[in-house]
Amino acid sequence: MQIAIPLFDRFTALDAVGPYEVLSRLPGAQVTFAATATGPVRSDTGALAITADAALADVTAPDIVVVPGGPGTRAMLEPGPLHEWIRSVHPTTRWTTSVCTGSLVLGAAGVLEGLEATTHWAAMGELAPLCATAVGDRRIVAQGKVVTAAGVSAGIDMALWLAAQIAGDEVAKAIQLGIEYDPQPPFDAGTPAKADPATVALLADLVMDRVSSDGAAAP
Amino acid sequence: MQIAIPLFDRFTALDAVGPYEVLSRLPGAQVTFAATATGPVRSDTGALAITADAALADVTAPDIVVVPGGPGTRAMLEPGPLHEWIRSVHPTTRWTTSVCTGSLVLGAAGVLEGLEATTHWAAMGELAPLCATAVGDRRIVAQGKVVTAAGVSAGIDMALWLAAQIAGDEVAKAIQLGIEYDPQPPFDAGTPAKADPATVALLADLVMDRVSSDGAAAP
Repeated sequence: MQIAIPLFDRFTALDAVGPYEVLSRLPGAQVTFAATATGPVRSDTGALAITADAALADVTAPDIVVVPGGPGTRAMLEPGPLHEWIRSVHPTTRWTTSVCTGSLVLGAAGVLEGLEATTHWAAMGELAPLCATAVGDRRIVAQGKVVTAAGVSAGIDMALWLAAQIAGDEVAKAIQLGIEYDPQPPFDAGTPAKADPATVALLADLVMDRVSSDGAAAP
Repeated sequence: MQIAIPLFDRFTALDAVGPYEVLSRLPGAQVTFAATATGPVRSDTGALAITADAALADVTAPDIVVVPGGPGTRAMLEPGPLHEWIRSVHPTTRWTTSVCTGSLVLGAAGVLEGLEATTHWAAMGELAPLCATAVGDRRIVAQGKVVTAAGVSAGIDMALWLAAQIAGDEVAKAIQLGIEYDPQPPFDAGTPAKADPATVALLADLVMDRVSSDGAAAP
């Protein structure tokens, strides 16, 4: 079972690594990080690079595709090699998935036509024209074999859900135990509905700080 | 504020990338992945490599250290360059931290002497002789500036806690909102106390499968 995770400049690392950590633990799974060319691909902060071990053109029949999000997705909304690759492999995947603003890329490539989908809460307006319905109140949106997850950390939840579909609940639970995923965030501020308006405003400031200091932005 | 994350062969990727994703969003933060030599460092599955952009010897005064875990920690329990580096930077860090079995490395380097600490639930017996008390029922164990987290995904919770200590609760909440960390795992099996005995046994089988197929093991 080949799991392909396409990388592109300024992806968000946890979008890719959360699902990788879960899905790589499925029996028989082989994860392949791929990009237009092999070699290191930098994340949105510039401080982390993951090696693309394969060229997209050489990954012709993955069973599962996980498209990560990140500010770099905005440069991936026009036709190009990533869209061509998604369109070429999607007909034969078992699952075509995204995390965070990875759904914008799936949508721009035409995969979300007629489907409900989700994305990072702050990008819901960008997703709306690229799918049938942008769903803002569910962390995982499954439509047949197309599954989109909410922002960044939601990829971990999506991957556990996917693990259960693929290998059964018992294997998914064992993987959850293996990564000791018993989340205990010190605050309950993970969505705009739960966070104070002041927190939402502060996040905007932090994002602007990142934009000016190192060219990164979120989500 | 420099945040150093040391890498070594067969680290567990999420141990490093969870805290990276949180702490890199702190105002003024600069994350540096470092290893004995620069270049790609492979994780425990063999399917993922993160680039070490710096040599450990060139990271002389980090403010925060986050040591990830993984099966590769077992080769890091004898005296060597990683221990020397930890011992040289620890006196001047603001925070010295670990995720999962990264605490075994901190312990072997002498940092946990006289302190309570935690690790992945399956490695608690290995941690016990390396610290004063191996704590099995807390996800984050803080002892002054030394903070150890439980297995793999616990690094996200630890990093949010740390973000609050460093920059205040409001900034930590904004970061949580930015990564949309509103966890909704499909199962409640993240610790041995919550999982069925059958799940614990199945995990052991999955780990053996990984050992035999690609040399990896957990945690």
